[in-house]
Amino acid sequence: MIGKLNHVGVATPSIDESVKMYRDLLGATSITDKWAMPEQGVWVCFVNLPNSQIELIEPYGEKSPIHGFLAKNPKGGQHHICFEVENIYEARDALVAKGATVLGEPRIGAHGTLIIFVHPKDMGGMLVELMETPKDAHH
Amino acid sequence: MIGKLNHVGVATPSIDESVKMYRDLLGATSITDKWAMPEQGVWVCFVNLPNSQIELIEPYGEKSPIHGFLAKNPKGGQHHICFEVENIYEARDALVAKGATVLGEPRIGAHGTLIIFVHPKDMGGMLVELMETPKDAHH
Repeated sequence: MIGKLNHVGVATPSIDESVKMYRDLLGATSITDKWAMPEQGVWVCFVNLPNSQIELIEPYGEKSPIHGFLAKNPKGGQHHICFEVENIYEARDALVAKGATVLGEPRIGAHGTLIIFVHPKDMGGMLVELMETPKDAHH
Repeated sequence: MIGKLNHVGVATPSIDESVKMYRDLLGATSITDKWAMPEQGVWVCFVNLPNSQIELIEPYGEKSPIHGFLAKNPKGGQHHICFEVENIYEARDALVAKGATVLGEPRIGAHGTLIIFVHPKDMGGMLVELMETPKDAHH
């Protein structure tokens, strides 16, 4: 079912500070501007690597779902991991049929394709995002 | 400096159970056997994805460096992230020159090339592994 490791989601108290770290300390050369996703409660920015991406997420608004994570991990850290799938509904149905807890209905994610999240209790302690592979090559 | 996202290191109390999850729930089709790395204090196994890998690590021996992580995260979770670099000594020297804390001397990792770890306090809360890109295509 799962295809590429699309990205690792990394929570941070400050995307601006994280961008400096990736650029100045790790020498990353392709980093997008940040933008707000109010419906997800996060600011988002991507560090592009040759084969995958780091998705930096910073809380947007008081109801951001990552406040809890940052309270436990004030410096930030790995928040989720995202694998590509061909069809989000088929993936969701297959997981539910096997007893996994899928969080919410499929919705549009930061890459413009449908995503779901699977509960860490069923995923070896990791919050797993599944996303439909974008149809264009630029992702 | 950093190139590909070589792998995400995922700690687990049981590689056997994690393999079942990746195979039966997520449908991963290429998973290596596990092997012991006594000098690192871990059992290791790779879930191969088309563009990257998940490195499953389970404690080996009482002095395993991941007992602490599993005490805090009994189900396991994302433990480190590994980026490829061309030359480990140049990467180490550049990081040290910029004030980052590199853990130990370069040593051979699970892919047979030199690795270092960089302290999470300098890496946005993430334990970062840097590894020299393997010379062959099979990694």
